[in-house]
Amino acid sequence: MLAVALAEARKGHDEGGVPIGAVLAVDGRVAGSGRNRRVQEGSVIRHGETDALERAGRLRADAYRRATMYTTLSPCDMCAGAMLLYGIPRVVVGEHRTFLGAEDLLRARGVEVVVVDDEECRALMARFIDERPDVWHEDIGEP
Amino acid sequence: MLAVALAEARKGHDEGGVPIGAVLAVDGRVAGSGRNRRVQEGSVIRHGETDALERAGRLRADAYRRATMYTTLSPCDMCAGAMLLYGIPRVVVGEHRTFLGAEDLLRARGVEVVVVDDEECRALMARFIDERPDVWHEDIGEP
Repeated sequence: MLAVALAEARKGHDEGGVPIGAVLAVDGRVAGSGRNRRVQEGSVIRHGETDALERAGRLRADAYRRATMYTTLSPCDMCAGAMLLYGIPRVVVGEHRTFLGAEDLLRARGVEVVVVDDEECRALMARFIDERPDVWHEDIGEP
Repeated sequence: MLAVALAEARKGHDEGGVPIGAVLAVDGRVAGSGRNRRVQEGSVIRHGETDALERAGRLRADAYRRATMYTTLSPCDMCAGAMLLYGIPRVVVGEHRTFLGAEDLLRARGVEVVVVDDEECRALMARFIDERPDVWHEDIGEP
């Protein structure tokens, strides 16, 4: 599943976008996959995880509660909040070296957080941050 | 500004949607107003606040840091997270009797939370929860 998320991230990079991808998996299947759409659609709320949720569409509450979110990068406050809203119990994080998100909040609320520390995820983000620091800082709300 | 948010909520109700509206105000002007789009667009991430953020478009980091979010209903974990991501320092909440969101988290992170306890906001939500409990529970991730 993380490979699918990474493929989304690479596609985002090819489009000139922020290279973060995610997959919402339910019962071992892809319910929705997505990627950050800031550049492509001028979106400020479509991060990898929220785009995956949106593309999965309206699901029953119990589906979210059996789901795992796979994301190439540590989830920000908004994406962590989206997972808490729907009661997603588990998140697999590609890496958290280039950006450390709200992992402590997720753990405090009972979410299992697994950090893979994947070198491909890290290298892709590091490259983008080097290429477009302006867009990256905008994406995490920093001046 | 809360009246603009309430007008959005009423429009949402007229459309058959979840009647929650919001306004992102920057320097005393409406940067974006929005409403919950679950029913209208099949969206699981467009709550009042996130829709207002999306409709405001890509703003500079410093604009968010001078902003106030006005919302007819106490913000859920996702919407609170979106405000934290962008460093919005203040939120004005129409009411929190029908749903108490992540106000404690916002306060703990330094956000000023003002609760108006507006009767019109409360009555509109109470009516909707009575009319469509299924859609309401779906919107907050509950079975």
